[in-house]
Amino acid sequence: MSGLLEPGAHRAAGLIGDAAVAEALRTVEIAWLRALAATGALEAAEADRAAEALSGARLDLADLSRKAEDAGNPVVPLVAALRDALGDESLAARVHRGLTSQDTLDTALVLLTRDAFDRIGTDLGATADRLATLAARHRDAVMPGRTLTQYAVPVTFGLTAAQWLAGVLDARDAVRDRRDHLPVQCGGAAGTLSLVAEFGTDPVATARAFAAELALRWPGLPWHTRRRPVTDAGDALVGVCDALGVVATDVGVLSRPEIAEVREGAAPGRGGSSTMPHKRNPVLSVLVRSAALQAPQLGAQLHLAAAQAVDQRPDGAWHTEWPALRRLLELTITAAAQAAELTAGLEVDTALMRARTDDAADQLLAERGGAGERPDDPAEYLGATARFIDAVLDRHRSS
Amino acid sequence: MSGLLEPGAHRAAGLIGDAAVAEALRTVEIAWLRALAATGALEAAEADRAAEALSGARLDLADLSRKAEDAGNPVVPLVAALRDALGDESLAARVHRGLTSQDTLDTALVLLTRDAFDRIGTDLGATADRLATLAARHRDAVMPGRTLTQYAVPVTFGLTAAQWLAGVLDARDAVRDRRDHLPVQCGGAAGTLSLVAEFGTDPVATARAFAAELALRWPGLPWHTRRRPVTDAGDALVGVCDALGVVATDVGVLSRPEIAEVREGAAPGRGGSSTMPHKRNPVLSVLVRSAALQAPQLGAQLHLAAAQAVDQRPDGAWHTEWPALRRLLELTITAAAQAAELTAGLEVDTALMRARTDDAADQLLAERGGAGERPDDPAEYLGATARFIDAVLDRHRSS
Amino acid sequence: MSGLLEPGAHRAAGLIGDAAVAEALRTVEIAWLRALAATGALEAAEADRAAEALSGARLDLADLSRKAEDAGNPVVPLVAALRDALGDESLAARVHRGLTSQDTLDTALVLLTRDAFDRIGTDLGATADRLATLAARHRDAVMPGRTLTQYAVPVTFGLTAAQWLAGVLDARDAVRDRRDHLPVQCGGAAGTLSLVAEFGTDPVATARAFAAELALRWPGLPWHTRRRPVTDAGDALVGVCDALGVVATDVGVLSRPEIAEVREGAAPGRGGSSTMPHKRNPVLSVLVRSAALQAPQLGAQLHLAAAQAVDQRPDGAWHTEWPALRRLLELTITAAAQAAELTAGLEVDTALMRARTDDAADQLLAERGGAGERPDDPAEYLGATARFIDAVLDRHRSS
Amino acid sequence: MSGLLEPGAHRAAGLIGDAAVAEALRTVEIAWLRALAATGALEAAEADRAAEALSGARLDLADLSRKAEDAGNPVVPLVAALRDALGDESLAARVHRGLTSQDTLDTALVLLTRDAFDRIGTDLGATADRLATLAARHRDAVMPGRTLTQYAVPVTFGLTAAQWLAGVLDARDAVRDRRDHLPVQCGGAAGTLSLVAEFGTDPVATARAFAAELALRWPGLPWHTRRRPVTDAGDALVGVCDALGVVATDVGVLSRPEIAEVREGAAPGRGGSSTMPHKRNPVLSVLVRSAALQAPQLGAQLHLAAAQAVDQRPDGAWHTEWPALRRLLELTITAAAQAAELTAGLEVDTALMRARTDDAADQLLAERGGAGERPDDPAEYLGATARFIDAVLDRHRSS
Repeated sequence: MSGLLEPGAHRAAGLIGDAAVAEALRTVEIAWLRALAATGALEAAEADRAAEALSGARLDLADLSRKAEDAGNPVVPLVAALRDALGDESLAARVHRGLTSQDTLDTALVLLTRDAFDRIGTDLGATADRLATLAARHRDAVMPGRTLTQYAVPVTFGLTAAQWLAGVLDARDAVRDRRDHLPVQCGGAAGTLSLVAEFGTDPVATARAFAAELALRWPGLPWHTRRRPVTDAGDALVGVCDALGVVATDVGVLSRPEIAEVREGAAPGRGGSSTMPHKRNPVLSVLVRSAALQAPQLGAQLHLAAAQAVDQRPDGAWHTEWPALRRLLELTITAAAQAAELTAGLEVDTALMRARTDDAADQLLAERGGAGERPDDPAEYLGATARFIDAVLDRHRSS
Repeated sequence: MSGLLEPGAHRAAGLIGDAAVAEALRTVEIAWLRALAATGALEAAEADRAAEALSGARLDLADLSRKAEDAGNPVVPLVAALRDALGDESLAARVHRGLTSQDTLDTALVLLTRDAFDRIGTDLGATADRLATLAARHRDAVMPGRTLTQYAVPVTFGLTAAQWLAGVLDARDAVRDRRDHLPVQCGGAAGTLSLVAEFGTDPVATARAFAAELALRWPGLPWHTRRRPVTDAGDALVGVCDALGVVATDVGVLSRPEIAEVREGAAPGRGGSSTMPHKRNPVLSVLVRSAALQAPQLGAQLHLAAAQAVDQRPDGAWHTEWPALRRLLELTITAAAQAAELTAGLEVDTALMRARTDDAADQLLAERGGAGERPDDPAEYLGATARFIDAVLDRHRSS
Repeated sequence: MSGLLEPGAHRAAGLIGDAAVAEALRTVEIAWLRALAATGALEAAEADRAAEALSGARLDLADLSRKAEDAGNPVVPLVAALRDALGDESLAARVHRGLTSQDTLDTALVLLTRDAFDRIGTDLGATADRLATLAARHRDAVMPGRTLTQYAVPVTFGLTAAQWLAGVLDARDAVRDRRDHLPVQCGGAAGTLSLVAEFGTDPVATARAFAAELALRWPGLPWHTRRRPVTDAGDALVGVCDALGVVATDVGVLSRPEIAEVREGAAPGRGGSSTMPHKRNPVLSVLVRSAALQAPQLGAQLHLAAAQAVDQRPDGAWHTEWPALRRLLELTITAAAQAAELTAGLEVDTALMRARTDDAADQLLAERGGAGERPDDPAEYLGATARFIDAVLDRHRSS
Repeated sequence: MSGLLEPGAHRAAGLIGDAAVAEALRTVEIAWLRALAATGALEAAEADRAAEALSGARLDLADLSRKAEDAGNPVVPLVAALRDALGDESLAARVHRGLTSQDTLDTALVLLTRDAFDRIGTDLGATADRLATLAARHRDAVMPGRTLTQYAVPVTFGLTAAQWLAGVLDARDAVRDRRDHLPVQCGGAAGTLSLVAEFGTDPVATARAFAAELALRWPGLPWHTRRRPVTDAGDALVGVCDALGVVATDVGVLSRPEIAEVREGAAPGRGGSSTMPHKRNPVLSVLVRSAALQAPQLGAQLHLAAAQAVDQRPDGAWHTEWPALRRLLELTITAAAQAAELTAGLEVDTALMRARTDDAADQLLAERGGAGERPDDPAEYLGATARFIDAVLDRHRSS
């Protein structure tokens, strides 16, 4: 979807582009036929035959996109294309029957979200592992604590890494939790499953079977106008960007040449300038930080839609969710991958940290009182630092 | 805090204004002294004496506000004022000692959030009860289902109310969950508890005692730069406004004079116009809806701050949280109270709903097929409506 | 760029996709060579030769996108590709020399914005013409005035259309004004044109020639960290969506079946439902309204970047501008085209408006006083309506 | 309005609080009576008598705030209070007659905006003067240019200050421009001035007289649903925060202890820490920067309202404008005042800048080529720096 103006977005390739959307829509429609078969509303053989034909149907994404405007959503033309591909008119009529566009599209976006959550979870796991290593390795490496940009009291780089790690673990827990609660959408035209009830089978059982086909949760009733599954997903994604944004912003500050306590790893072609040959720009942290500056608006967009989900199925508000969610998924997938690479390559200059801490000892120990009262060594004024690091490492090990 | 331009904000009186902030700050400082006593770092009698003096200290809010600019936060002048009130210089020096401004302010805002959550929870409970009554009473009251603003298939007003109820229950569950996990902030100057460690007692035990004094959770390490407690609270509050916004937006549409299926309850002086004597404006739904349109930006503001929580304690980003959180609390408290009143008074015209459904039966039953195939009565085409209502009512009863 | 999830985005095809971005970047680099020639820093024949070669160079968009991550922006790989295409190493070294990536990218985005402004201006013009026709034709067609969703006093549909028109004219004026002030970006590595000054020619004259090549304004100095050109463009685009959003939201309300005073024009395949054959969803107004609900967040994203444009050229903040601006352009181009079609096809039921006004006359005339004091005919209580319409039509004619 | 949690908000005292709002509302109502007199719809003596009584009426702000909820806005209870104060029932009936609540409130907020613009303009002028002095004084003071946080090529501190100045001048120009175009709101119940037309005088002439009384522009027709005056004001205010945010963010970076090229001026009690005696936090830049991080969301809130201004006068959307505009005014007034103080006191260490530039000369001159090709002195590689500074200073002098 994105390209020249979204550096790193190729990392989300295959997960959120139009092809992935179309596949998810198709998957949902096939699952519906199987759910009908599972509850006896359709012959199993018929469902198999239809599933095979639908699986093989070629979808013209550009054509579907154009037609999506006429219907206001991509499901109407997609269903038409699938029915055409099926040929058999009577069987074709069963495709999508009982569902509404929003059932299909909401569920497809849930499937995309699940795949994205899995990818993000993996990358957060790698980042967490790496941060745990850094926290353990540099547990005692003193550096100046900085608050409101000025020197405060000493900390260690291990504590800095442990705080980053705790943030990443929080974000990963939220992603995992949301991943396991993702619901199917199934309500029919106005959320009553009325047409499904005409099939001679239990409509709620069909909805359950539909969820089971897709390994999603059946939430008990449709959520056409209760958008919490979407906003919960959005909040979790923004939370990932928040946690990674802190890492990236810290790396950005600490890798300023005047500070230079950390540095992004070198990679061929990475961080170059179009004009200055010496430059090694902290590209990954710049990009991760830029993701963190974008995510909150996208999350807010989802909440705005939620608050205006009027009637039995909403008008324009629903439509605003799609690009916002897709872009938020792309951004978070990309940032999580970049953060894994950033932390994997991070170079830490503990000698410089130590030297600067010694130089600034007067300020860093001022809290302790006058010259005679202070310890000589900033490393002796670390309080609960090691215990805090251990607490986070324990949590990481057991998670 | 707010007034003429924030109609209904008086409902949050006492919970989020400057007086409440100052009291919470004072409460935190007193709890700290008691925590020191609990761990043996201060004599219990000293702590008692100090607590009594601090409790009685008069705080000049206007003066503290002005001085807050010099320090960048209100804690510095407040601590100075508390120390002055204490008199005894040596005991005064123990006030706040070991903490940093952010410990006090973050914890105070957590206390305000807890009180707000309690109030909001109560009002959501009242709203939920009322919606459950409406859902049960009007379980079978048919009305036109509307999607993308146009007639779809029949639903019942009971289902509409049940969907509203499900949203309110989701929101209340999230508020309850967050309420029970609110953490104390305790880290000292740069999150190491170094100064506390100098008191000759276990600094982590002191932090635990501090949390216990305030009936808050000790989260294992400070969160000066991991702002998830704040963004989680914000997300929960926005979620409340989302759920109430749906109710209000629906009521707004359904009470248009051409639709008139519901109407806000009459109250003396309510809904009047400055020029048109006949008017009965749907004031409560207008105000609740306006809250729902504001909350997402405030939640996003908190996330933006979280993503930029740099160094050991952040610069400007932290400062943006305070007014955003305070305003979000005010807005949500107000909206929750208004929604309770709105739903309590809601008038439902089921006869009109029925008549309109019958008039529009051709459209509402078009999904079923041609004239001969349809049921005569829209009430016979309700699918799983009653089961969905029951599912929500069951959940409400058991919650 | 966008597709299945952004219905109507094909209307922006060719204007903001990666191909358009790459062409704009190439155009900028060629203009730079011509500017060098114009000021004597390069032989004209050399510039011609290079321009021809660069014009013909094939650009691999996917490859450039991937490489954009390494550099943090697409200019670095694009320049490399252009130099490769040129062959002649010494001439190749002149490509981009003196510029920085931000000069090229900012200017390219300005070019895209100009093209988008032109397209949007055309569509706003068509919408304005149509609204003027509606305002004139229905000048006296009474309809109920509605405030806070309830009946107020009578208005005419002509006035409604005239108000829409006034909003569109305001938006178009802002777009025109901004279009004519779009600046070139030209500052070199840190905004000093130092390298250009080494070419033996006047660097400011070169910047002026560069602007002239592209028919852009030379703003006197670079704006690497003063992002007002970007935020001004963003505000103008959001303003367009605001104005069109009002039209769309009004059409959405007025085309509810219970009101039915206006209706979107019928078009083959337009507004269909995936399940209900009778439905004619107001698709264009839904989509335009959804654009209006998205634009403000995108505009805010640009301001957030502006406020954080630190150093001589900003880090992550700058990077957040690109997708936000691109998406805002796409959204506004699409909405403007859809609005032109929406207004062109709008069906107005003045008979129904009249009948409803008569039915509601008691309420609509209540402001006038008791039964004896009122005019019999709501059409006699229109105040300055006709004069307001004329004022807007006069403005339209003279604009 | 704000206090402990909005450090510096006392600087906006008297301009945007409830008392100022109430006074502006009263001023508008009095102006309306005078406008009626000016056009012959009311005896001049009557208008004088009413004006005197209204001027002296005591307004109970807390009571009005509470009652504002019943009406959904503060105008209804305010008009009631003014009429009560007037006593004479027949004259009292003329108060507000012909207007609608939105006329009064919109116009009152315009008056507040004008006063705020004046104050902001003054402070921006002071900041501009100071920055011009800095730009001129340090025209040749070399410092490292930094891009993407890393060293680029040399600049001078004069250029940095000149860029800040250019941003402030842009912001001031926009504020001035908007200030001079602020319109009166005048339309009556549904924007037709129908009731005014019944007074036997020309309703449009009355609207013009109303505008003249308040020294506002008469915009030709009401703008109840065209909110550009509000969004234009909002965009201008956000633009001010953007420009000041850049200054503050740069000062924040440059005053880090490892960089230390600038420092906020010392002031008694300013920048202290609650625990660390040595600290001198850059409080003003922290607060200005925090304003810049908040303003964009508030501006977006105004655009969101604009896009949903439905019917003849909008429902909830309008109500969201008031707190957003008020807070944005407060924030910008405060930030402008703080920025004036920040720039007035800014300490610049040109010796350190020079030394660092020399130390980093290899990197700062790398663009020029290998060792033999470079100038020895970074100060010889400044390109158009001086001319850019002069261009901005010229603009400042002539503005």
